[in-house]
Amino acid sequence: METNATTEATQSSPKPRREKRPLNGVDVPTLFATINAVAEQPELANFQFRASNQWVKGTHSRSRIEGFSGAGGEHAQTADFAYDTDHPPVLCGAGNAPSPVEFLLHAIAGCITAGIGNIASARGIELESVESHVEGDIDMRGLLGIDENVRNGYEGIRLSFKVKGDADAETLRKVVAQSQARSAVYDVLTNGVPVSIEVDAD
Amino acid sequence: METNATTEATQSSPKPRREKRPLNGVDVPTLFATINAVAEQPELANFQFRASNQWVKGTHSRSRIEGFSGAGGEHAQTADFAYDTDHPPVLCGAGNAPSPVEFLLHAIAGCITAGIGNIASARGIELESVESHVEGDIDMRGLLGIDENVRNGYEGIRLSFKVKGDADAETLRKVVAQSQARSAVYDVLTNGVPVSIEVDAD
Repeated sequence: METNATTEATQSSPKPRREKRPLNGVDVPTLFATINAVAEQPELANFQFRASNQWVKGTHSRSRIEGFSGAGGEHAQTADFAYDTDHPPVLCGAGNAPSPVEFLLHAIAGCITAGIGNIASARGIELESVESHVEGDIDMRGLLGIDENVRNGYEGIRLSFKVKGDADAETLRKVVAQSQARSAVYDVLTNGVPVSIEVDAD
Repeated sequence: METNATTEATQSSPKPRREKRPLNGVDVPTLFATINAVAEQPELANFQFRASNQWVKGTHSRSRIEGFSGAGGEHAQTADFAYDTDHPPVLCGAGNAPSPVEFLLHAIAGCITAGIGNIASARGIELESVESHVEGDIDMRGLLGIDENVRNGYEGIRLSFKVKGDADAETLRKVVAQSQARSAVYDVLTNGVPVSIEVDAD
């Protein structure tokens, strides 16, 4: 979402100053107005996202993405968003849906890509395409309880982006770098976040 | 997935020894056989999960969950799993799907719940229901580039579980604790993971 560092033309550059106009499906003037509004009223910046989950059977469960609060109010989802998850058959699940760790790959690819959309638009770059591939390695001896020295989660996640637009390669690479620098999911996955778990079993 | 610490009856306990039998939709004998096979052949433990993502428009993109490797082979998904993500209208997105950070909430709830399904079954506990609610707080001044002292991602994530089954509350709480102790997503979200990003913009 970070969009402050727009491309500014200089006297020595032949490139015309990029206008802040809607581009790539991003309403850039509204995006900047939103950033300015939050800068002036920091309490608008407090967001809370929520989901509920119900066990179905075995390792299969279903989450419903709930409404969220932010910008000083409550917001309903635009539709009824529900997602299943399950373990794959090779890990004794029923394979009704991708595994939870695979949704992490969707989240990181989607977050960096959304940032590319916003930042390119704010910098006046028309995007042609953004494609990415993401992979993550897990040594299952951790979560299977076989080796205490092996972590439960991914040992590493790698993303590769292919970006096309009406700017040179260096400029496009800077857009991706800025998206990475401001990505919420990248921050959570690389730096970690406190997670608390309460249980009502009565 | 961790299932080693099963409930063992003792001479002094009136409770009969729990049999390792299919329960709650979990094929417990196969689950234990899988763990034993991986313990004997550690190279089976190396898994790689993969996804690809395509930008659609604005902050909207779509991920396809791809096949994965593990247990010494390649595995196709059981179906064509594709998921959209977008920013919400209040953050200048089109709201075509939940935001990337909301998929993190799905992933953590689904991972802990899958573990509860496996561990309860391995311990011979018949589950009646597992429900959870998860919420995460973000101060948008980070990712909007307004305040460098504010992180981009969640400041904290909280899950609350309500678990019912044919065991006492303490036993059910231990199942949740064991799931947390072996959860891949919990590990990634709390401890972080190295994430690398390559860009092809030529």
